Amino acid sequence: MLMDNTSAEQIPTIADILAARQRIDGKIRTTPVISEPVVNEILGCELWLKCENLQRTGAFKFRGASNAIARLTELGLQGDVATHSSGNHGAALALAASNHGRRAWIVMPDNSVRTKVEAVERNGGNIIFCKPTQQDREQGLAELVARGCIPIPPYDHVDIICGQGTVAVEFAEQCNDLDIVLAPVGGGGLISGVAIAAKSMLPSVTVIGAEPAGAADTAYSLEQGKRVDEFPIDTIADGLRAIVGVLNFNIIHKQVDTVLTVSESGIRDAMALIWRHFRMVIEPSSATVIAAISEHPEAFAGRKAGAVISGGNVDLEQLPFKP
Amino acid sequence: MLMDNTSAEQIPTIADILAARQRIDGKIRTTPVISEPVVNEILGCELWLKCENLQRTGAFKFRGASNAIARLTELGLQGDVATHSSGNHGAALALAASNHGRRAWIVMPDNSVRTKVEAVERNGGNIIFCKPTQQDREQGLAELVARGCIPIPPYDHVDIICGQGTVAVEFAEQCNDLDIVLAPVGGGGLISGVAIAAKSMLPSVTVIGAEPAGAADTAYSLEQGKRVDEFPIDTIADGLRAIVGVLNFNIIHKQVDTVLTVSESGIRDAMALIWRHFRMVIEPSSATVIAAISEHPEAFAGRKAGAVISGGNVDLEQLPFKP
Repeated sequence: MLMDNTSAEQIPTIADILAARQRIDGKIRTTPVISEPVVNEILGCELWLKCENLQRTGAFKFRGASNAIARLTELGLQGDVATHSSGNHGAALALAASNHGRRAWIVMPDNSVRTKVEAVERNGGNIIFCKPTQQDREQGLAELVARGCIPIPPYDHVDIICGQGTVAVEFAEQCNDLDIVLAPVGGGGLISGVAIAAKSMLPSVTVIGAEPAGAADTAYSLEQGKRVDEFPIDTIADGLRAIVGVLNFNIIHKQVDTVLTVSESGIRDAMALIWRHFRMVIEPSSATVIAAISEHPEAFAGRKAGAVISGGNVDLEQLPFKP
Repeated sequence: MLMDNTSAEQIPTIADILAARQRIDGKIRTTPVISEPVVNEILGCELWLKCENLQRTGAFKFRGASNAIARLTELGLQGDVATHSSGNHGAALALAASNHGRRAWIVMPDNSVRTKVEAVERNGGNIIFCKPTQQDREQGLAELVARGCIPIPPYDHVDIICGQGTVAVEFAEQCNDLDIVLAPVGGGGLISGVAIAAKSMLPSVTVIGAEPAGAADTAYSLEQGKRVDEFPIDTIADGLRAIVGVLNFNIIHKQVDTVLTVSESGIRDAMALIWRHFRMVIEPSSATVIAAISEHPEAFAGRKAGAVISGGNVDLEQLPFKP
C-alpha cells in the first residue's frame, strides 16, 4: 500500500520522475514560463516564473496527485482514495481520481475556507467534515482506510515527490540555462522533487528553497542537522504550515543548496509586485520565492533565476496585500 | 504623419501583419494558450484561451503600440509620442515608447481610476490630466501635437491593427485547427487585425466578435449596413465603450462573420467562471467572449473555439463578480 513506502531510503531518481512525467502526460497542463524586464530591473536578476498557479486545480499539487493515482492503476490497485486536507491537495486528489474513474474522499476540518471546500466539490471530491484538530483529521482518514479506501498522503511519499518533480523537468526544457531554481518549502513535496530533477537536468544549477520565518522548520532542521517535528507556526502562507516530511527532509538535506527564510511583509509585498507587473494573483506560499530574492538579493544578483510559482488559490475577498 | 493614414482604403494584408510581428519580436511576450476540460464540459465546446491578460502591460494593446512606435523608428520619424486614453492603450504606449528611448505623453481624464494612472506612471509615461470630456481629451492631445508630439491613436490606424493582428498569428500557430476565433469588439483594433490574420492562416475559420449589448454600436452598424457614430453606452466592460473606428468597421464589415451581443450578467458570470476554473482575473471586456459562448451556445456546440482574452487590468478591490 502507498503509506508503507515512505522510508527515507527510497529516494527517487530522475528516471522515476521522467516515468512520472510520461504517466501524467495529457492529464496535467504544461504551464507557461514568463519574465518581465521591469521586474528584473527591480529585483536585480533575470527572473523566470514557472506558472503552476495556472496548473489545473490552481496548484502544482495536481501533478503529484495525478502520478500517485496513475501508479495505483498501473499496480492494479482498485478502489476509492482518501486523504485529509484543508487545502490544495484535496482538490488535486479529487480531480486526479475523477480523471481515473475513482472516487476520492477528503477529510476536511469544518473551519476550512469556503473557496477550498468549493474547489474539492467542483472537482468531484466527497467531503467528510471533522473537527479542526490533527487528531480528528487523522482519525477521519483512518476510518476511511478501515472501509477500504487507499490513503494518498500530501507530500511524504515517493510517487507524490516524483509527480511534483515533473515541474522542474518542464522548467529545465523551457529555460535550459538557469543558474538558480527556487521553490517554496512546506511539507517538502515540491522542493524535493524539484531538487532531484533540476540537479539532474541542469548539472551546475543551485537549488534554493524559500520558507516563511514563521514556518521555518526546514531551515531550522537543516541547522540542527536533523529533522525537527515541532515548530511554532505563524504565517499567512497557508500552504506552507506543514512540518517537513521524513523522506522530503532526507532529500532536501542531500540535494537542496540552501533554504532562505522570508518575512510576512516580504510575502505581502511580493504578492503585490506580481499582481502589479504580471496581472496574476498568486498564493502567499508562492510569493515566498519572490520575497527570497527581495530579502536576500546577494544570492541572486545578475544571475538567471527560475522560480516555481506554486499556486493561485486565494480568497479574492480577503487579499493580504493592497492591490 | 500617422493620423493621416486612416482612410478606409488602406486595409492591411497578412503580409503587413507578419511584418508587424517581426518588428515587435522580442519586445512582446508570446502569451500562453490554455484549455480546461471541466470548462469545456460546462460550455459544450472545446475552448482555448489566448491569454493576452498575461501580455506585458496586462493587455493586447502593447502589440499595437509596439508596432506603431517601431514603424516610426523605421520611417526615421524622431520625437515624443502622445495619445489620449483612460485605459490600457496609455500604459501600452508608455512602455512601447520607453522601449524605443522615446517619451510618451498621455492625456488622461482627471477621474481616471487609480490603477490605470499608476499603470501609465509605472511604464514611464508622462500624464497630462484633463477634464473628463471627449472635447477636453482631444484638445489636450491637439496641444501636445502642436508642440511636436506624434499622435498614436488607440485603434483606428493600420499600424495599430497590424500589431493587434499578431495575436491571431501566434494563436493559429499554437492551435492550428480552430473552427472559430472569437475576440471582443470595442473600437475594433483587435477584432479587425485578428480577422485578417485568422482568415489568412486558417482558411475555413469562422471569426466572431463579442460586444456588450450596452455598447453594441458595431452589431447595430452591421445591421444598418453602415457605421453609426453614436450609440447609448452602458456597460461594465470599460475597454469596449468606444465607438468602432472607420478603418476598423470597414474591415469588420468585410471579414468578420458575425458580432454577437452579450448581457451584463453574462459578463459577470463569465469573469467568475474564468476565476473559478483558471485562477485568472480577467477584465469585463475579455469576459464578453466567454459570455458569447454561454449566451449563444448553438454557434459553438461541439466545435473548437479559440477566444482572445484581451486583458487583465481590473481593480481587485471593486470586482464586478462574487469570487
